[in-house]
Amino acid sequence: MTHRTLTVGLGERSYLIHIGRGLLDQAELLAPHLGSRRAAVVTNEVVAPLYAQAVERALEACGTRHFRVVIPDGEAEKRWETLDRVHGELLRAQADRKTVIVALGGGVVGDLAGFAAATYQRGVAFIQVPTTLLAQVDSSVGGKTGINHALGKNMVGAFHQPLAVIADTATLDTLPERELSAGLAEVIKYGAIDDIAFFAWLEENIERLRARDPGALAHAIGRSCEIKARIVALDEREAGVRALLNLGHTFGHAIETLEGYGAWLHGEAVAAGMVMAARFSERLGRAPAGDALRLERLLVRAGLPVEPPAIAPDAWLDAMGRDKKNEAGRITLILLDRLGSAVVEKGAPQGEIEAFVAGR
Amino acid sequence: MTHRTLTVGLGERSYLIHIGRGLLDQAELLAPHLGSRRAAVVTNEVVAPLYAQAVERALEACGTRHFRVVIPDGEAEKRWETLDRVHGELLRAQADRKTVIVALGGGVVGDLAGFAAATYQRGVAFIQVPTTLLAQVDSSVGGKTGINHALGKNMVGAFHQPLAVIADTATLDTLPERELSAGLAEVIKYGAIDDIAFFAWLEENIERLRARDPGALAHAIGRSCEIKARIVALDEREAGVRALLNLGHTFGHAIETLEGYGAWLHGEAVAAGMVMAARFSERLGRAPAGDALRLERLLVRAGLPVEPPAIAPDAWLDAMGRDKKNEAGRITLILLDRLGSAVVEKGAPQGEIEAFVAGR
Repeated sequence: MTHRTLTVGLGERSYLIHIGRGLLDQAELLAPHLGSRRAAVVTNEVVAPLYAQAVERALEACGTRHFRVVIPDGEAEKRWETLDRVHGELLRAQADRKTVIVALGGGVVGDLAGFAAATYQRGVAFIQVPTTLLAQVDSSVGGKTGINHALGKNMVGAFHQPLAVIADTATLDTLPERELSAGLAEVIKYGAIDDIAFFAWLEENIERLRARDPGALAHAIGRSCEIKARIVALDEREAGVRALLNLGHTFGHAIETLEGYGAWLHGEAVAAGMVMAARFSERLGRAPAGDALRLERLLVRAGLPVEPPAIAPDAWLDAMGRDKKNEAGRITLILLDRLGSAVVEKGAPQGEIEAFVAGR
Repeated sequence: MTHRTLTVGLGERSYLIHIGRGLLDQAELLAPHLGSRRAAVVTNEVVAPLYAQAVERALEACGTRHFRVVIPDGEAEKRWETLDRVHGELLRAQADRKTVIVALGGGVVGDLAGFAAATYQRGVAFIQVPTTLLAQVDSSVGGKTGINHALGKNMVGAFHQPLAVIADTATLDTLPERELSAGLAEVIKYGAIDDIAFFAWLEENIERLRARDPGALAHAIGRSCEIKARIVALDEREAGVRALLNLGHTFGHAIETLEGYGAWLHGEAVAAGMVMAARFSERLGRAPAGDALRLERLLVRAGLPVEPPAIAPDAWLDAMGRDKKNEAGRITLILLDRLGSAVVEKGAPQGEIEAFVAGR
């Protein structure tokens, strides 16, 4: 087993990201964080039968006592009721402040289990073991945890950094096609916001990625994590540059909230949202004509939707008006100066936004 | 208006505690924290008609736009459902990350609104404006926020320090007798754990306190906050000495959880719990004979219960087994070496604890 290790540099909260095939049952990656502590493996009913035993074997090799908490699958589970059940299972097992939560699954499991860790007994440690492409390239890195509110995606949560991220790329072998594509949306995002050479590489290699070529996947995941780790280290709590990682998310979160959590996968909503952001950037004369189309073509080749569902203009504005990036009642957007270079725009003319979502 | 100001020294998270009569509508105490930010006044239906307008006048004098979120009264409200409603009202008002939450009320409002602030959009700032004796001497200071779980008191929460604490002692004029007594339980706790001279002063002045003598109340609140601020500054996240503030709370939380939240006021459960801790300290030969009785007599004079309700031994052990202070399956207790000096005991013989709660 060879693997690659990156660092997220956050002072005393720094941690490693391990990326490679066959890492799930490698005790030496877990051992530095466990010792005599107990572990709670929080996972879902789809992932548990596939991968929980491998992780539990590794825990046993560390001499760590463990128990398992299994939640249902799906974005709709990212809510208070499920979190309350997880807390209840931790309490019934008499988990204490030294217990380490191991979040085994995709973005929903990672966000929910991470927030459970942030809030159980006012905070316990956790380890991210992402098993989807989206979680491996994005949601497991950077310490954003939380749940959805009926009125807005990811509106309730905490910044809570993991002790480590262990991304076993072999878990992608079982990932449904649609989820692979959803993860590719976030991969393409990194190229669009920060690295035109990586974007061009993705244009060359998108078919290899969809065919799950291990070398191509390893490169895409590694480069995505490098970009994310660098940006998070610059701005842990999103006071500035970290907001760039939200390209497509203002429109995308509105789609997820308004269509009902889970109807669109997060990556699908981000794909359509990025195209909207790129088109709006062109409309404002900020991005060169043609960039939106180039982005759209790559997303289509990745198997992603590029047009939003039919949403009334008022509903768009209402949902976007509750975005976390907003200040003083103004909608903040992430726009493109050009492909490969994004910018946080707090001053976009609100009339232009209104006309844009109204299709005028 | 004269008032006293203490500092909670926590580096960049340091803040002031203001204590005095007539502080609610003093804009200059709020102004340093607001500027052009919006404020959400989170309060309950009992406190709102009494004091919300005074705070809102002060906000207006600062030029701060504000809105009000009102929850029902009572300990039973310290739960997910109510928190979810508060988050919903913040979202409907399009509160953003710069919005400041003003927690106006007793311990339930402070804990819940503080946790709402800790988790809304992954964290916004808040100001504590405590209006009960218990909140002024204890729960508003130190950054513990959270809610109850059906299986355990305060089991879900976050450490989230306020920007300031503004304790207007005039609000105690309207406090029900029973709540005044509940607050005195925490005041007496500070004497018992840390300051025998203060304990003796309380023995001399307990009738003046129950009669709400302003000078006596000001002294008791000031001394309580001094002790709490010093201990919190030493150990913000309760790795050690801060646990001393939990004298009586292991037994007390079990009473609250098992009797149903709100049946016993928190201070009442702590009073009975402190007597149990003192008796158990004597039983182990740790505290001198007579200390438990001396503590009990002062609590009785403060109008507090000193005997727990009838609870089966298994239920005691089950509830105490889920205490946040526990490690590796062992119950941690705060015991007395003598009145005025408490100690964190992780090694109490579990057989003795079992016999004690069984009344053997």
